[in-house]
Amino acid sequence: MNDFVFCSPTKFVLGKGAVDKTGAEMAAAGFGKVLLVYGQGSVVRSGVLDRVKASLEAAGVPYVEAGGARPNPEVCWVRDAIAVARENQVEGVLAVGGGSVIDAAKATAFGVPYEGDVWDFFANKQPIGECLPIAAVLTIPAAGSEASASCVISCDAENRKLGASGDVFRPKLAIMDPEVTFTLPAYQTAAGVTDMIAHICERYFSGVGAVPVTDNIATGLVCALMDAAPRVLEQPDDYDARATIMWAGTLAHNDIAGCGRSLNPTARAGGWESHALEHELSAHHPEITHGAGLAVVMPAWMRYVWRTNPERFLDFAADVFGIEPVEEEYCPRDEAVEDAVTAAIDELQAFFRSLGMPATLADFGLTPDDIDPLLETLRASKGEPFGAFQKLTMEDARAIYLSMF
Amino acid sequence: MNDFVFCSPTKFVLGKGAVDKTGAEMAAAGFGKVLLVYGQGSVVRSGVLDRVKASLEAAGVPYVEAGGARPNPEVCWVRDAIAVARENQVEGVLAVGGGSVIDAAKATAFGVPYEGDVWDFFANKQPIGECLPIAAVLTIPAAGSEASASCVISCDAENRKLGASGDVFRPKLAIMDPEVTFTLPAYQTAAGVTDMIAHICERYFSGVGAVPVTDNIATGLVCALMDAAPRVLEQPDDYDARATIMWAGTLAHNDIAGCGRSLNPTARAGGWESHALEHELSAHHPEITHGAGLAVVMPAWMRYVWRTNPERFLDFAADVFGIEPVEEEYCPRDEAVEDAVTAAIDELQAFFRSLGMPATLADFGLTPDDIDPLLETLRASKGEPFGAFQKLTMEDARAIYLSMF
Repeated sequence: MNDFVFCSPTKFVLGKGAVDKTGAEMAAAGFGKVLLVYGQGSVVRSGVLDRVKASLEAAGVPYVEAGGARPNPEVCWVRDAIAVARENQVEGVLAVGGGSVIDAAKATAFGVPYEGDVWDFFANKQPIGECLPIAAVLTIPAAGSEASASCVISCDAENRKLGASGDVFRPKLAIMDPEVTFTLPAYQTAAGVTDMIAHICERYFSGVGAVPVTDNIATGLVCALMDAAPRVLEQPDDYDARATIMWAGTLAHNDIAGCGRSLNPTARAGGWESHALEHELSAHHPEITHGAGLAVVMPAWMRYVWRTNPERFLDFAADVFGIEPVEEEYCPRDEAVEDAVTAAIDELQAFFRSLGMPATLADFGLTPDDIDPLLETLRASKGEPFGAFQKLTMEDARAIYLSMF
Repeated sequence: MNDFVFCSPTKFVLGKGAVDKTGAEMAAAGFGKVLLVYGQGSVVRSGVLDRVKASLEAAGVPYVEAGGARPNPEVCWVRDAIAVARENQVEGVLAVGGGSVIDAAKATAFGVPYEGDVWDFFANKQPIGECLPIAAVLTIPAAGSEASASCVISCDAENRKLGASGDVFRPKLAIMDPEVTFTLPAYQTAAGVTDMIAHICERYFSGVGAVPVTDNIATGLVCALMDAAPRVLEQPDDYDARATIMWAGTLAHNDIAGCGRSLNPTARAGGWESHALEHELSAHHPEITHGAGLAVVMPAWMRYVWRTNPERFLDFAADVFGIEPVEEEYCPRDEAVEDAVTAAIDELQAFFRSLGMPATLADFGLTPDDIDPLLETLRASKGEPFGAFQKLTMEDARAIYLSMF
């Protein structure tokens, strides 16, 4: 077990009717006037936003609104929201939505006390010292932003999608009401579950050997997700399965599934290779949903790198799929290991497909000619080589992208 | 999944040399002058206390000392420590030790701002509103107090050992250095692991059905502990196994293994029947180590109650021990279930024995005549009936105690 620092201070309020407790919980947590951040209308149409507003009003928590944050939120929106927050002298930020809305709110929260341009935190990795307190009402379980130290923002002018990180902007409060996710479209549900499994796998395949406590939590989360996801696709109002997905999505990304797996005690575990490869896809092709992109990228990455540490993939194969290598007279150890690892990756990809996720880049209408622009921004974003499980050059990245056709 | 509120805000700093980071981490967390609480000398002899003091001095964190807290800490010690804290106007408390020392520090921390007698919080369940900030340098992994919302104190004059609880006194900071546990005696190590497994099981057998995310975390922790414990008994300086035990002990009791398993969203999951039965043992017979008492109590409680919800025990049998009921022509379902559950409880008890833990109350030199005084204080502490998995009367409790001979 490598040294680690772990602090997930968020207060989680999960349950039926949690949305209506937002105001009381905000008041109890000491929030003053807040910027109420939301997206492009689904929380308006579902009535969730009105319930949140009513509970804020009942609890005497004043708010000003900043709606219209889009999926893959854009830095121009954040700049406008920062201006609104400053004009109205808000003291905190409340996001109502999924990961994109929460990330837009986070960027606003650490952009307000900063004198320069908020994009500095992403493009120039300016360290984040100060931040307004953040709360979130989660309506789309996927990104885990309700508890994570992560924030991802896009800049359309530069065709880039970049992350910032810092414990300082972990939300103080997360309101999690599984009932508001009953109406999530199947595709979005599936993409969310894929993203969660990717968050767990990025940490699991981090270039560090077995860490039993953390590994058992990680595979336990994957198993719970693989059991729950088909049930909600069949029965969208299966409360227990929806709650399982919501809570597993939080734990997939609050770093409990990474403790002791990092090479740097204060940094997130893992090299985040699949996320890096996917971020280029959705930066250049914003119609690609992040989770759907990951469903294509992650198995391809796994097939490319597993030989670097077969034991790690065998642990995953055994604990998630019950697959063990079978040595026989005509099947020596090496082949048995390859068969077991390949079978596990096949199973994972088959699971994503069973949820309606794509399996190739061609499914998104891309061709191999689209790869070069991805590599150009990938090199700028991640440097070369990048990754923790196995160092990847741009030629490796090209080969992985090519294998997705 | 039942509704829940979960907040574990502690910053965990786990790794080699963590002890020497205490001062810097205390300063970073904003601690002013602290009361330095420790026990009866092992941290003095091991040199850990001197390392903590040196790091506090280097970081400019002033302290006054309150040593001598005993195992099963006594309320008179706490009253004295409160007086020292007030005289010296300390602003926080730093415990260096195991669960007893941390609990003594916690009781001091919420006793200081309270005008009445600190025993009120235990005997009269006076709610805890205010508390000095608490930090802990953990040297004996067992009780999980470094992150829990629990505190257990004894009152010798009343022959009672009682708990208080409240999120307000969860430590802000926990320094966890597995290397300082290399020298822990085998018995103490084993009793600690038993206590951890009990913390997980009390929540697992809580009277609520399956909660997949939480259950997978719970059984994953038990499996990690059952793998690591024999390794440290064989090789006391096995770092990874010591680190596994240390971290698993924290997660066993910070409530992550109880989310969604409580009947009251803001209360800890479970009925804590085994702890209630054991607390009477070590209150009346302070020579009984809490974990050793649990090694006797827990299997006896399980054998007495499992028929109330066999499915819950079958889940545990399958996920921890790989034991499934085997139905055959001459072995109908009921018998197969009984065989599987009994086999799992036998395995658990055999595991405790393999660690050197006792199996009967006679091993402590007790006789059935010792039961009546236990029942008297049990009724006063818990009321009648008590428990969540199955409501227990004092006659049930008597039968369970008797089955331990």
